[in-house]
Amino acid sequence: MLFLFTLISLSVSSGHNFSSSLLHALYSKQQRSMAAAEESLRKALAEKQSAVEAQGDAVRALKAAKASEREIDAAIAALNSLKLEKSSIEKQLQAAVSGNDGDCALSREAFRQAAVNALERRLFYIPSFKIYRGVAGLYDYGPPGCAVKSNVLAFWRQHFVLEENMLEVDCPCVTPEVVLKASGHVDKFTDHMVKDDKTGTCYRADHLLKDFCNEKLQKDLSIGAEKAAELKHALATLDDLSAEELGAKIKEYGITAPDTKNPLSEPYPFNLMFQTSIGPSGLSPGYMRPETAQGIFVNFKDLYYYNGNKLPFAAAQIGQAFRNEISPRQGLLRVREFTLAEIEHFVDPEDKSHPKYSEVVNLAFLMFPREEQMSGQSAKKVRLGDAVSKGIVNNETLGYFIGRVYLFLTRLGIDKDRLRFRQHLANEMAHYAADCWDAEIECSYGWIECVGIADRSAYDLHAHSEKSGVPLVAAEKFSEPREVEKLVIAPVKKELGLAFKGNQKNVVEALEAMNEKEALEMKAALESKGEVEFYVCTLGKNIPIKRNMVSISKEKKKEHQRVFTPSVIEPSFGIGRIIYCLFEHSFYTRPSKAGDEQLNVFRFPPLVAPIKCTVFPLVQNQQYEDVAKVICKSLTAAGISHKIDITGTSIGKRYARTDELGVPFAITVDSTKDVTIRERDSRLQVRVDVEEAASVVKSVTDGQRTWEDVWANFPHHTSGSADDRVLRDSSTQLLT
Amino acid sequence: MLFLFTLISLSVSSGHNFSSSLLHALYSKQQRSMAAAEESLRKALAEKQSAVEAQGDAVRALKAAKASEREIDAAIAALNSLKLEKSSIEKQLQAAVSGNDGDCALSREAFRQAAVNALERRLFYIPSFKIYRGVAGLYDYGPPGCAVKSNVLAFWRQHFVLEENMLEVDCPCVTPEVVLKASGHVDKFTDHMVKDDKTGTCYRADHLLKDFCNEKLQKDLSIGAEKAAELKHALATLDDLSAEELGAKIKEYGITAPDTKNPLSEPYPFNLMFQTSIGPSGLSPGYMRPETAQGIFVNFKDLYYYNGNKLPFAAAQIGQAFRNEISPRQGLLRVREFTLAEIEHFVDPEDKSHPKYSEVVNLAFLMFPREEQMSGQSAKKVRLGDAVSKGIVNNETLGYFIGRVYLFLTRLGIDKDRLRFRQHLANEMAHYAADCWDAEIECSYGWIECVGIADRSAYDLHAHSEKSGVPLVAAEKFSEPREVEKLVIAPVKKELGLAFKGNQKNVVEALEAMNEKEALEMKAALESKGEVEFYVCTLGKNIPIKRNMVSISKEKKKEHQRVFTPSVIEPSFGIGRIIYCLFEHSFYTRPSKAGDEQLNVFRFPPLVAPIKCTVFPLVQNQQYEDVAKVICKSLTAAGISHKIDITGTSIGKRYARTDELGVPFAITVDSTKDVTIRERDSRLQVRVDVEEAASVVKSVTDGQRTWEDVWANFPHHTSGSADDRVLRDSSTQLLT
Repeated sequence: MLFLFTLISLSVSSGHNFSSSLLHALYSKQQRSMAAAEESLRKALAEKQSAVEAQGDAVRALKAAKASEREIDAAIAALNSLKLEKSSIEKQLQAAVSGNDGDCALSREAFRQAAVNALERRLFYIPSFKIYRGVAGLYDYGPPGCAVKSNVLAFWRQHFVLEENMLEVDCPCVTPEVVLKASGHVDKFTDHMVKDDKTGTCYRADHLLKDFCNEKLQKDLSIGAEKAAELKHALATLDDLSAEELGAKIKEYGITAPDTKNPLSEPYPFNLMFQTSIGPSGLSPGYMRPETAQGIFVNFKDLYYYNGNKLPFAAAQIGQAFRNEISPRQGLLRVREFTLAEIEHFVDPEDKSHPKYSEVVNLAFLMFPREEQMSGQSAKKVRLGDAVSKGIVNNETLGYFIGRVYLFLTRLGIDKDRLRFRQHLANEMAHYAADCWDAEIECSYGWIECVGIADRSAYDLHAHSEKSGVPLVAAEKFSEPREVEKLVIAPVKKELGLAFKGNQKNVVEALEAMNEKEALEMKAALESKGEVEFYVCTLGKNIPIKRNMVSISKEKKKEHQRVFTPSVIEPSFGIGRIIYCLFEHSFYTRPSKAGDEQLNVFRFPPLVAPIKCTVFPLVQNQQYEDVAKVICKSLTAAGISHKIDITGTSIGKRYARTDELGVPFAITVDSTKDVTIRERDSRLQVRVDVEEAASVVKSVTDGQRTWEDVWANFPHHTSGSADDRVLRDSSTQLLT
Repeated sequence: MLFLFTLISLSVSSGHNFSSSLLHALYSKQQRSMAAAEESLRKALAEKQSAVEAQGDAVRALKAAKASEREIDAAIAALNSLKLEKSSIEKQLQAAVSGNDGDCALSREAFRQAAVNALERRLFYIPSFKIYRGVAGLYDYGPPGCAVKSNVLAFWRQHFVLEENMLEVDCPCVTPEVVLKASGHVDKFTDHMVKDDKTGTCYRADHLLKDFCNEKLQKDLSIGAEKAAELKHALATLDDLSAEELGAKIKEYGITAPDTKNPLSEPYPFNLMFQTSIGPSGLSPGYMRPETAQGIFVNFKDLYYYNGNKLPFAAAQIGQAFRNEISPRQGLLRVREFTLAEIEHFVDPEDKSHPKYSEVVNLAFLMFPREEQMSGQSAKKVRLGDAVSKGIVNNETLGYFIGRVYLFLTRLGIDKDRLRFRQHLANEMAHYAADCWDAEIECSYGWIECVGIADRSAYDLHAHSEKSGVPLVAAEKFSEPREVEKLVIAPVKKELGLAFKGNQKNVVEALEAMNEKEALEMKAALESKGEVEFYVCTLGKNIPIKRNMVSISKEKKKEHQRVFTPSVIEPSFGIGRIIYCLFEHSFYTRPSKAGDEQLNVFRFPPLVAPIKCTVFPLVQNQQYEDVAKVICKSLTAAGISHKIDITGTSIGKRYARTDELGVPFAITVDSTKDVTIRERDSRLQVRVDVEEAASVVKSVTDGQRTWEDVWANFPHHTSGSADDRVLRDSSTQLLT
């Protein structure tokens, strides 16, 4: 990407789709040795092919020369042996390019399919407007997904906004053009598109090229090592290609429209914002915001004032953002509308320390700095404090947020071994950015960028200051006024007017625009020579400046404050991506009691589980139902979301049903005095008094105590596996 | 409105702007007697004017006839006396049309200005994109407003979704055209617009007409009673006027563009949805949703299945909605983007009882049924159960939700005496609606519709079933199959083909389309006469049907279930409007201690207050700051949002500052052992141990105990008014 839009420009990288300029970076050691093997196999295959051809020629020559039958037979036997050898190399190559990795891809695919089936069937999410055959890239969250999302957002607000005293704002999605002109989105927020020349169907040019290269590399064994290297290079540099370069590649490889095989148009940029018109006149273009950050930047002045004109402070926003994808893929990971949670932390560029830095300094987790990526190593566990002190992470505040993001994600239930912080390479970063790290989470699609944490320097505030004419600056008041030397350039307009007539204004502006060095050189030259040649770029020529035309001096001034544009450090969270990865990390299957089927489980921590607790009367019975209702009332009073299930379904089936929703605890009423509490993953149960049940569940879901603690302190329910208890218990029931 | 869009079509009614067809309904008794007085004054004025004119004529006649000076003087004296009387009536009329009401409007205006000043200065809300001079109808919530909003939404989720086990969903804002075509929005979600013929500036036609009539009624005393009645009628029927009728009125009254006085175009409908295009092709029109409800309707089938194929159940959604207003007015009340919270409660149309109805049946509050509005009465306090049992409220479920909405709003802090439930009049309701009530809240703009609670019957599900071809229905399974008699019409195609050749298909369709009565009449006629004349509308003529051409019979069938389209009862909440009214209901001023200024206070209940507690070290002092930090830590652990203020500002000023943010409690650290807790509205303070401070605040903000309870159980801090304690205490401090 030429232009960096933090989270909006999330790129997806996987072992298969070497989709970015990071190809080499994505290779683990193992992958690198596999690549080396592949290359030598391609060479061996090409050599063997030549040998087969040469031997074929030899056989034909012997036949033409009417050689002896024995000679000819021997030559044919040699040819067949060579063909066998070639075929063996082909098989090895096939295995190398898709073999093991292919198996792995297959199991990833199967895992994803199982998870997605469970997610869609239980309405965690639903393709939007399904009864009208849907719209690509738009999804609804159904009841459990919506509950997970609202838990994730509530925790985000707790973890960031409340704990850090951030200023949360809520701005509209509809945004007038001028704002997005200033931010650069109107001009540069584009992808390259090609059209099927005949049907008009649109495709992303880089996707077509990527698919072509991947397909060729995996399926066409006849290409040589050189060609393979070329294709891999094309994949690695995909994001850097201009429209012209993309067009040239598409022509060179003869790529056509995937469905029709029709020729394709030249690539041209397509702006990814949804455009609309504000008001009835048709004269006020607007867009659906592509990120929430701009709403914060334009409010900087008010927020700074609200914060008592003090830095640093952070503003935050949770809201919808929009991206009119050309052809969305990959389910919840690349969608046309999504929820962002963004923080803009404003700091003095000369002081990027953070008061709470010490709280994260000893965290250690997988980091993947630029250097390691370039030298083909993999992500390693690093102590955050070391990464900052060694200058790998640019500054303390950036480091602090990396640590806080790590804590946020792992507390949600993201597996820490499949979470890494990857630093942007030079060609990924915007020119103005000081440093940038992505929290990437590994899922079945590969490593997915879910949070971007960027030091964007003063770029955004500068851009809006310039466009709006409203200075978006901060001031550091000095306790005592400071004396500073200031350069003063004073053109003498009268003399300049006499000398340069109509060009006077250009000359004045050019003189005033000199930097300190130029001005002091001119001052010296005028003092020694009395006249100097001076280039005025707006006139495109040199003109002579005399001593009486300008006065240049350094003056001492007292300053009471330093005025500057703050830097902004921006952690930006793609909530939908985090949730999807959380779904995958939480999903597993286990055999049913009878062993005849695999049951789905989501191991959500209570913090994010859609419902914290279910209440089951063991059998349909008024007494048990009454007890269940009493417990539900206590749960409601305690603010614990729960569900009662009084269907007569077997308790095992009811457990399986809520395991698949990720409900961590189930209270089963099998007596009017005490009940059992079952934990989802261990399937262990304790017996608790009816009156205590709600408060025990509350204490574990609130994190005041652990399940282990509960297990250690309450009598165990030991009647074998809970999940088939219904038979035993209902027969007991019948006896009483 | 011809077409009802529940909350989207919120209309605003006030004493001044008789903006809807409800004119008479809005008159209280007092207002009605004022209107009668006004009418009689207009009549008296017109009579006096005639008398003045007649007397003037008489004077001129006397002069022309050269009458005696005494005669002429007497006539002139009579004329002057008549003029004086006329002038006196004019004054009374002036007073009647704007007098008292005018004062009241002035004080309302002043109140609003004070509240809005405080709200904008403290960043409760901010005109969006202010540095670019903003966009009409778009507002940001700044930090305290955003916190209030998120508290309101959290409580909404608790009060409705969790307590009622609703299925919450989260659908995108971007919506394809087909969905909004089915819902009727593409064709009918419009306002009438006129353009300034020369500048092209757009106006809402009904607003211009309304402004003209109001202005005329208030400022032009010369109009007679008849004209006044006509203008009032125009105001009352404003919403029922077609484009043509609006255009005719504008012409008739000579209404021109307000700013330029240029002529206006004919009115034409302007669709209020923000339009956009989905994907790159330009061939898939889409809109930003005007309400969240459609996302729920299109998911009905999945949600019904998720609920175990059982009715009733409710789905809910919180999200952004959009309305491209022609010319937004009234600040936060009429905006182009807003947050809606909507519930769609699906019920069997044959059983609209509600299991929890008994919990609200004894609530009593202001209700304003249709009958009372029509007969010019005002809203009265009614027991909800009576309104339902008398059939004033159509059904139990609708009544239940009215009660729940009442509880929701009053718990937020809405004044129950300025909240009424107004039933829609016949001409306000969509043809399909069974009943509809608005929760209206009175604020400085008048009575504002903030929640719509409508029984929309099966309209929405029907519309989407028809458009999508996917049946959106529910089934009631019978415990035993039921025998039903069904009419069977079987046209004999062969005979019909022979008789009617190419018209056979039309005849078959017409026969099959007969209702039961028609079919049985035909059966009888065929049996008695053997032939019957039958009108086929698609052919536009009668044809003869003979006995052998159709068989009509009634057959008994066993049915196992009843399949039907559920009714939907929809409570729809305009969150921004509720918040604005809450701001006004919470706002008051009180004199400062010194009496030299008015201090602003927002009396938010803890539930919605942006911050629950502030912590003030009384003076700048390390010991106190350390204690304050310990307390803050306990507050964070308890989940109580708070802010520490360690500026050296006087404690009185710091209290005033947080009173203006509506922070209910302040903990002031003036010792290392115990601290004071101050309540915002009473300004009373108790002394509490440092260790207990956070838990005491938590218990009052959570609603576990009241402030009165705290006041009764802790020692009082009795050093006079808290707000000037700094002097006393800081001097004490200096002595120790």
